[in-house]
Amino acid sequence: MEKPYVIGADIGGTNTVFGVVDARGNILHNSKIETGIYEDVNDYVTALTDGFKELIEKVGGQDKIKGIGVGAPNGNYFSGCIEFAPNLPWKGKIHLAQLISEKTYNIPVTLTNDANAAAIGEMTYGAARGMKDFIEITLGTGLGSGIVIGGSMVYGHDGFAGELGHVIVKENGRICGCGRPGCLEAYASATGLARTAKEMLMSRTDESLLRSLNVENITSKDVSEAAEKGDALSIEIFEYTGNILGKALCDFVAFSSPEAIILFGGLTKAGDLIFKPVQRAMDENMLTVFKGKTKLLVSQLKESDAAVLGASALGWEVKEN
Amino acid sequence: MEKPYVIGADIGGTNTVFGVVDARGNILHNSKIETGIYEDVNDYVTALTDGFKELIEKVGGQDKIKGIGVGAPNGNYFSGCIEFAPNLPWKGKIHLAQLISEKTYNIPVTLTNDANAAAIGEMTYGAARGMKDFIEITLGTGLGSGIVIGGSMVYGHDGFAGELGHVIVKENGRICGCGRPGCLEAYASATGLARTAKEMLMSRTDESLLRSLNVENITSKDVSEAAEKGDALSIEIFEYTGNILGKALCDFVAFSSPEAIILFGGLTKAGDLIFKPVQRAMDENMLTVFKGKTKLLVSQLKESDAAVLGASALGWEVKEN
Repeated sequence: MEKPYVIGADIGGTNTVFGVVDARGNILHNSKIETGIYEDVNDYVTALTDGFKELIEKVGGQDKIKGIGVGAPNGNYFSGCIEFAPNLPWKGKIHLAQLISEKTYNIPVTLTNDANAAAIGEMTYGAARGMKDFIEITLGTGLGSGIVIGGSMVYGHDGFAGELGHVIVKENGRICGCGRPGCLEAYASATGLARTAKEMLMSRTDESLLRSLNVENITSKDVSEAAEKGDALSIEIFEYTGNILGKALCDFVAFSSPEAIILFGGLTKAGDLIFKPVQRAMDENMLTVFKGKTKLLVSQLKESDAAVLGASALGWEVKEN
Repeated sequence: MEKPYVIGADIGGTNTVFGVVDARGNILHNSKIETGIYEDVNDYVTALTDGFKELIEKVGGQDKIKGIGVGAPNGNYFSGCIEFAPNLPWKGKIHLAQLISEKTYNIPVTLTNDANAAAIGEMTYGAARGMKDFIEITLGTGLGSGIVIGGSMVYGHDGFAGELGHVIVKENGRICGCGRPGCLEAYASATGLARTAKEMLMSRTDESLLRSLNVENITSKDVSEAAEKGDALSIEIFEYTGNILGKALCDFVAFSSPEAIILFGGLTKAGDLIFKPVQRAMDENMLTVFKGKTKLLVSQLKESDAAVLGASALGWEVKEN
């Protein structure tokens, strides 16, 4: 009998959320544990897999589970390891896929980074169903990306491909979290948008609703709320951000000529505030041969479920070894 | 019996070169016709396929030919058409693969652009043998690229992927042949290098061997010859060019994390003059996770044979329809 369910787990710096998912993308049961409280990764894996086992019992036992998919910062698909993930308490290279499998009835575990998991989730359950060539851009604290070409996830020769947050968009630009100047992520992300707000507020004198806030603590949500009230400076901040992102997307199209680019993550909640300038920049800057061909779409994964769904989609891929 | 040979044809603005090639990449017989003298594409195809038939007779007849591969400017792999190729006399969309096949015993014809053909040639007979993930960069009059991921050529959803000459490397930079400002090709190509020479000679006053030449007519070969004689300005022109290219290659690595980037084409004849600054810029600007992982290689296709070999490699791919 075909095994009807998979488990998806998304490891974040604060929490690890996980659930049992069916082939149509319904989350049957879910749960979470805190990530940061386990100094020893073995204790973490024990707590996580105990959580898995509870869910597995609820759906009828281990024979119902085809695979386990894990999305983790700096997760490597080929090795099943996490390596030097800056927001996790465990240092060095950790064979996480193997550790989890050993404590979960040896069910196969597939692991990748969270942005790739989002792309696989989109392809399995979301806006990219049926697409063979698309790029998923996650606009969260940073900018993550998952690239699908010819129906397959692009992992590169080392498992780390798809770091589109770290293409250079400004010569001698802002210093990125990675230490280099001018990365896309330093502009087109929730953090990047807040940096733009801060820069504009400090270098200019025009009035803005944002001026009632402490400039050091302004968030992308503050800017979004002010923009929705018609605040001109806040609208301009979104236009600046969207313009940089849209131009970068033109470069990505020149690379893989995808059918669609799908935006996902917190910043997309701003809706047209971000989508319109991105679309405009794509229309204005696209190489002629690609003009009007690549759709700009919003993710169809529900924000609350997306992390678990994205990771779970990996569980359907049982790797042949 | 397995058919032992393929035909490769490379359509250039001036000449079309073609040959019969065996599985090891030996060109058994070759020939050429002028491209530009045929105003009607049917006359061109007749002349070309007459040329093919002469070669086919020399190797024992049509049963010996597995396929025909054609490299052409703006050639589309999916449709077998050339579309709006700026340097060819025929306008609009032309079903070239079909026209050629019909006049060559219905042998299957596969067509792609010349930069993709070079990448396939490299994978079949050159420096990329055995590689599954690499990018071939052709530094000629322009900058062409062919991207291979997971052992397959990246064509994108429309057949036009891999236009890496047209990623933007300078905000408000030089106007490219495509009409947009700041494309990589406007800097990292034979033409781009000559533009750099002209700009530097006109904006500066330091001595240079290049000052004895008419600045309007300076070529990359002139700069290369002067640099080899130790001319400081000429060496700086190569460093400027290589630095821009190397930084762009870091962005490409962030996309597909290839095992190697292979440089091919006229500008690579300058050897270390161009390779060293490219390698240095890659070492200095690469995202940490990719540092030192992607090899920078020179093509192993012989320049004189490369066009025919590259195209011929396509002939081994008989498409299933």
